[in-house]
Amino acid sequence: MVPRYSRPEMTAIWSPETRYKIWFEIEALAAEAMGNLGTIPADAARTIREKGDARTADITATDVDRIDEIEHETRHDVIAFLTWLGEGIGPEARFMHQGMTSSDVLDTCLNVQLTRAADLLLRDLDAVLDALRRRAEEHALTPTIGRSHGIHAEPTTFGIKLAGHWAEFARCRTRLQAARAEVATCAISGPVGSFASVDPRVEAFVAERLGLRPEPVSTQVIPRDRHAAFFCTLAVVASAIERLATEVRHLQRSEVREAEEYFHPGQKGSSAMPHKRNPVLSENLTGLARIVRGYATPALENVALWHERDISHSSVERVIGPDATITLDFALMRTAGMMDKLTVYPERMKANLESLGGVVHSQKVLLALTQAGMSREDSYRAVQRAAMATWTALGTPNGRTFRDELLADPEVSAKLDAAALDTAMDPAKDFRHVGNTLARVFATGGL
Amino acid sequence: MVPRYSRPEMTAIWSPETRYKIWFEIEALAAEAMGNLGTIPADAARTIREKGDARTADITATDVDRIDEIEHETRHDVIAFLTWLGEGIGPEARFMHQGMTSSDVLDTCLNVQLTRAADLLLRDLDAVLDALRRRAEEHALTPTIGRSHGIHAEPTTFGIKLAGHWAEFARCRTRLQAARAEVATCAISGPVGSFASVDPRVEAFVAERLGLRPEPVSTQVIPRDRHAAFFCTLAVVASAIERLATEVRHLQRSEVREAEEYFHPGQKGSSAMPHKRNPVLSENLTGLARIVRGYATPALENVALWHERDISHSSVERVIGPDATITLDFALMRTAGMMDKLTVYPERMKANLESLGGVVHSQKVLLALTQAGMSREDSYRAVQRAAMATWTALGTPNGRTFRDELLADPEVSAKLDAAALDTAMDPAKDFRHVGNTLARVFATGGL
Amino acid sequence: MVPRYSRPEMTAIWSPETRYKIWFEIEALAAEAMGNLGTIPADAARTIREKGDARTADITATDVDRIDEIEHETRHDVIAFLTWLGEGIGPEARFMHQGMTSSDVLDTCLNVQLTRAADLLLRDLDAVLDALRRRAEEHALTPTIGRSHGIHAEPTTFGIKLAGHWAEFARCRTRLQAARAEVATCAISGPVGSFASVDPRVEAFVAERLGLRPEPVSTQVIPRDRHAAFFCTLAVVASAIERLATEVRHLQRSEVREAEEYFHPGQKGSSAMPHKRNPVLSENLTGLARIVRGYATPALENVALWHERDISHSSVERVIGPDATITLDFALMRTAGMMDKLTVYPERMKANLESLGGVVHSQKVLLALTQAGMSREDSYRAVQRAAMATWTALGTPNGRTFRDELLADPEVSAKLDAAALDTAMDPAKDFRHVGNTLARVFATGGL
Amino acid sequence: MVPRYSRPEMTAIWSPETRYKIWFEIEALAAEAMGNLGTIPADAARTIREKGDARTADITATDVDRIDEIEHETRHDVIAFLTWLGEGIGPEARFMHQGMTSSDVLDTCLNVQLTRAADLLLRDLDAVLDALRRRAEEHALTPTIGRSHGIHAEPTTFGIKLAGHWAEFARCRTRLQAARAEVATCAISGPVGSFASVDPRVEAFVAERLGLRPEPVSTQVIPRDRHAAFFCTLAVVASAIERLATEVRHLQRSEVREAEEYFHPGQKGSSAMPHKRNPVLSENLTGLARIVRGYATPALENVALWHERDISHSSVERVIGPDATITLDFALMRTAGMMDKLTVYPERMKANLESLGGVVHSQKVLLALTQAGMSREDSYRAVQRAAMATWTALGTPNGRTFRDELLADPEVSAKLDAAALDTAMDPAKDFRHVGNTLARVFATGGL
Repeated sequence: MVPRYSRPEMTAIWSPETRYKIWFEIEALAAEAMGNLGTIPADAARTIREKGDARTADITATDVDRIDEIEHETRHDVIAFLTWLGEGIGPEARFMHQGMTSSDVLDTCLNVQLTRAADLLLRDLDAVLDALRRRAEEHALTPTIGRSHGIHAEPTTFGIKLAGHWAEFARCRTRLQAARAEVATCAISGPVGSFASVDPRVEAFVAERLGLRPEPVSTQVIPRDRHAAFFCTLAVVASAIERLATEVRHLQRSEVREAEEYFHPGQKGSSAMPHKRNPVLSENLTGLARIVRGYATPALENVALWHERDISHSSVERVIGPDATITLDFALMRTAGMMDKLTVYPERMKANLESLGGVVHSQKVLLALTQAGMSREDSYRAVQRAAMATWTALGTPNGRTFRDELLADPEVSAKLDAAALDTAMDPAKDFRHVGNTLARVFATGGL
Repeated sequence: MVPRYSRPEMTAIWSPETRYKIWFEIEALAAEAMGNLGTIPADAARTIREKGDARTADITATDVDRIDEIEHETRHDVIAFLTWLGEGIGPEARFMHQGMTSSDVLDTCLNVQLTRAADLLLRDLDAVLDALRRRAEEHALTPTIGRSHGIHAEPTTFGIKLAGHWAEFARCRTRLQAARAEVATCAISGPVGSFASVDPRVEAFVAERLGLRPEPVSTQVIPRDRHAAFFCTLAVVASAIERLATEVRHLQRSEVREAEEYFHPGQKGSSAMPHKRNPVLSENLTGLARIVRGYATPALENVALWHERDISHSSVERVIGPDATITLDFALMRTAGMMDKLTVYPERMKANLESLGGVVHSQKVLLALTQAGMSREDSYRAVQRAAMATWTALGTPNGRTFRDELLADPEVSAKLDAAALDTAMDPAKDFRHVGNTLARVFATGGL
Repeated sequence: MVPRYSRPEMTAIWSPETRYKIWFEIEALAAEAMGNLGTIPADAARTIREKGDARTADITATDVDRIDEIEHETRHDVIAFLTWLGEGIGPEARFMHQGMTSSDVLDTCLNVQLTRAADLLLRDLDAVLDALRRRAEEHALTPTIGRSHGIHAEPTTFGIKLAGHWAEFARCRTRLQAARAEVATCAISGPVGSFASVDPRVEAFVAERLGLRPEPVSTQVIPRDRHAAFFCTLAVVASAIERLATEVRHLQRSEVREAEEYFHPGQKGSSAMPHKRNPVLSENLTGLARIVRGYATPALENVALWHERDISHSSVERVIGPDATITLDFALMRTAGMMDKLTVYPERMKANLESLGGVVHSQKVLLALTQAGMSREDSYRAVQRAAMATWTALGTPNGRTFRDELLADPEVSAKLDAAALDTAMDPAKDFRHVGNTLARVFATGGL
Repeated sequence: MVPRYSRPEMTAIWSPETRYKIWFEIEALAAEAMGNLGTIPADAARTIREKGDARTADITATDVDRIDEIEHETRHDVIAFLTWLGEGIGPEARFMHQGMTSSDVLDTCLNVQLTRAADLLLRDLDAVLDALRRRAEEHALTPTIGRSHGIHAEPTTFGIKLAGHWAEFARCRTRLQAARAEVATCAISGPVGSFASVDPRVEAFVAERLGLRPEPVSTQVIPRDRHAAFFCTLAVVASAIERLATEVRHLQRSEVREAEEYFHPGQKGSSAMPHKRNPVLSENLTGLARIVRGYATPALENVALWHERDISHSSVERVIGPDATITLDFALMRTAGMMDKLTVYPERMKANLESLGGVVHSQKVLLALTQAGMSREDSYRAVQRAAMATWTALGTPNGRTFRDELLADPEVSAKLDAAALDTAMDPAKDFRHVGNTLARVFATGGL
């Protein structure tokens, strides 16, 4: 967790104080359920709740240190917490944690944290989606060249570009909701998950109060395939960020200059070269995406625990739980901000689009020639010949536009005269379906 | 793709012959749609279908070589195929592929292959689920020791163990269905996905006939976040296999011997040591899981293509498309077979369960002491003291059972007499919720 | 292993025929050593060598099938091979494999294959290095703009660019030699590596004949940290390829056009757009790099085998042994070819370099101002102001060059007159160290 | 960076204070070199050194906050630092950083940090090696069963087991030294690495003083293949830890109980089950290994930067630089401590070794039969038959030892009488090469 890539709300989810509050909440709810069932005295449950609330309500760094100190002796984090908590509760403390095992507390707590984190990430995704949709609609009909392999292909609009990214993030939102559901379970099933000393109704009660589902069958731990699926989903979201960041980086290249990250007054691009304005946000996002993706592998390796549980997953989750969600939260909000303020240069888009002498209309000519009866192979050769001639002479004194090259080619002009050629190459064709496509993508949620 | 880890049905999905047949199907359906719309002559569409069917119906290795030869010249796979196909169709061939780009064919084909592969994998998962459920029900009440950290914890049943794996594979099935839906899209949108020269109704027609949905907005290529999510899901399934394989490997250890992979007549375990019977299936599955997991990372790196497309994803998919699905198909069926024929030794399970002098009942004594008024800390210390004494002297002449140690401890016996202790330690408690748990897991589908 | 990304020499290393020949060689050498030591009759060793040579010299697909058939029964690959081999050797066959275990044969064979593969890869790297050095020297003084963050920074030469890649591949060569040494070991130590039934001198003999070192202590298997280090090294080489491929992809962008992959006569760039010439080799290399990198993770997961060995590594290695080396071999030779034939456009490099009105000389002005007594902060602001003015007005009628902006700025002109400014901005400065740098990199081997 | 997995000395390397001190050192050394060369006034260089030393010597959290504040405005970390530093130096500050770019400072600093981290890790490895060697020599002749596939194979000694791990860590040490050399370079080459405004002798001077080598050719940044190789090496070290941790976890299993992690007085194994003593250190190490391994992938993805540099690597390194080295430092020292204090149970090893009725001597009988003239296949079948009979009846009243089964088998006894059988099965054979092997491994350093 690197402070510069952390936002406070997400960071707070992973603080020791939050964790201990959730632990207490689980213990108090379990005690309440046991009190209701008569497993422990109902009075004891009330005492646990009241005195425990008092002890944990404003838990401080000093308390955290004290718990650490007890853990240093017992070498067991949950026992250390229960001991500290018991000091504040008194004799009734012995009725806490009855029939439970530490995994009940730890795993349920982790899932509470992950679902809270997911809720923040969903909100972040909404911010990204909002920015993308607004800019997509703003530039619905801003012409720009579409590029395949980095080479000018055919015209499209900047709005369509952004709509593609919107759709990808919309799918990510759907995936993240599914991933949230994966980890929204609660286990209070005792050692080896057998419920030998704890009633399953306790689990049902705690789950319901925490907004979780009971884990259908736990092996003491909540199975880690759930968490693997969760972190893989974060990795996919990170990759969506990287695709958008890569687009911005390309558009801001000196030779392209079609869009630019907002450059703050007072900002300095380089310690050496005062002329620099660099796409540092999108490059930063590219790196953050690598980080978040990197956490998928250890999450997958965490699945194959031994028998009913081993604790090898724990150190991994202490790292990737906070780091993956905090980093992704930061990255998503940076993405939203970047897209919100992105400076777009439609004039430059137009200039680039027109910079290759019209060869980007080659397909339309190819089709017109085949419709006019030429074979696909012959048409292809003729159009390729003209396009290459235009391309090669770009910027030279004797260069000719693609249209002129075609008209000068007897094989082509035998099939298409100037008027037919102009009809074929009509740029209006390129944008006729833009409105439908935008409508479709927003209607389907990108699915 | 390693022959020994391949099954023919899955392998066939990825053969050149299958690919070319799907390519033709896409072209023929597109032509049919264009014929209906009047974009091309309806007769031409019929000719394409009829002559194309004839040419591709029994496509041979010789044809594949011929296409490769054309590709060697054109350096473009789809053009090579269309050229070969056109040789069989004649002049109407020029009406094929009108307004389309090769990505339309390639990406739609890939998704057809992936959905077919997913269908096979879903069937495989059913086989795994069937085997697991049958064995879980067979051993619903077969007592065995539950282990956390590899250390005997408390009793459970072998059926509960298997039910946990069943639930995990059931979740994998649900995830795989979602992953299948992710990649069940079709794009026929032409260069840069603009529909400039192809009517969106063509896409809708082809999609419907192929059982796919139209891609809401494609950037020429079908966005690779879909495929990343797909391969990540396979990685999660592989990890579920690894967890089960790890369990079997542990159970077959010489010191444990609670279960054993079926050993064929004539089988030899070792070239050197004739006494060996090794868990080679589960070890093999462990390795196969690593392979399938390894494909998630390149799939994630495939997402951030440049602009409207680059072709860097293609080589990755030529490898991981077949290899991940073929390997996982094999691994799942091996898993099903292994579990189906697993030899289970209930007597040995019982012997292990009872091998530690009864210390595995320590929690129940702890609870009884706290219920009898002792503080949690004092109870813990007393029970730990007795358990460690029993454990340390295991197998020595002066060893005492856990029960005897407890009764000899004045602090304990002051709270619990022999009868109370026996009530506390009653093994029947351990299994009272087994039936409910099994019912719950099968009812919820593990979700 | 995908045929289109495979070259025959590397593929042959991994054929069943090659594997069986290496297996026999190991057995024959071991028998020879045992014959020398008197462990087995010397005559038997000679018979094994002679009859075994005859049986394996021209081993055919039919033989391979026969061995597979025996394996189907014994479920053990080495026993199957020994049985088939014994059929040709007769009674003396019982003296083969004395005191050995199958790992001795399998692991030593794998290392023979990996060192052979490494030798090919080293040769491939030499081809890449040759091409890069030749082009670097050819373009030692071809000016081009250096870019940081995709933004024009300061001038450099194309030769310096290529020298940086040369250095990276030279380091990769050094790493690969180290990785080859890692896996150049031989183990003939019998079950659990104890030499209980095989003399260590047998191992020494076989190792020496195969050009390997004896494994200092094997646990029956050759430890897999060696192989993990090997495959991680391949991943680093793959990443070096990706960096060079990314450079070429950038240079070929339509807006940049400074270099271009060779475009074959007859080549077609797109099925739809005849004007396309795409950087398909470098994009393909980008994908191949992802594939090779993806194999590092399973190789790392293979290290932690259980106790003296488990066989989970085997399936992984059956895939990544061939696939990683075959793919990398293909990728390296494609890289060499691409760089060898790369079309370079110095005129276009010059045009790009000069396209931003001279702002790329901003640092030199900044330094001159600080040398003239202005503070770093004031100098920076003044130069940034002028550079932004030039940049913003690029291509507009009232745009001014950077030089004109600076001269018009009273704060700047108070410190630097036109002559001083021209001295400061002298482009000759940019290239004065090129020769030294090139000499240095080739002298140090990039280390 | 998780506090509980961090040790102060390594953590300090990565603190902002340390980073700023290194940045200043680089600037001061560069100024000194420029002063010597006359590029800047020698007096200015002295002032920079003296006033800068004073300003950075006891840099506080308040200073760090102030630098952060400046960065918030300039959005550039190095400029922020230089501005803060300049406030303390006065007008001569303008002579700092002349002709340099921020990468010169950042990349050289990172390499200083990584080499310091590597030095600590090498020391940690020495601690691991010391513990392993001491325990290996202590248990050089402690018999234990060797296991392949988790199944008893043949006897070995616990010392040999540990020697194998020693050899692996010794190789890791050699690899880490090579990895340290990879990143021990310095670049002071200015924008795009051209030395246009900074003399290469400055770089040579700074490198020499910092104990680094000049980077042969930098592209403004130090090439990231070096760092990829570094982090891959850490991943291999982590995997070596995992293999050893896995061994300990296995040995401590309840059914095995051959070794046990030290259990502290006051330690509690489980919140629920007072009888538990769990291998929590080795399980924790298993998880830490996953974390460190996970950083290799982003490090590899960092290699392919765009053109002369992009800054996408930076965020990755801010995370994995500290986290990988801090985690590995902690894990190595935990490994050393765990092995140092590991409780070993030779009696239990002996009991396990003898628990299978002698079948673990099957190979020796197989060899004796083949030496006595029986074919390998017949010998194998006879020995397998006897071994399976013994195994199957283990623990049953009518079970017979392997020796008795063999003597009762007419096919066997026709070749080997009781005396010959006892000679064949002599356990002394198993350990005759232990001394040589230990000597060899320590002599070769495991290479």
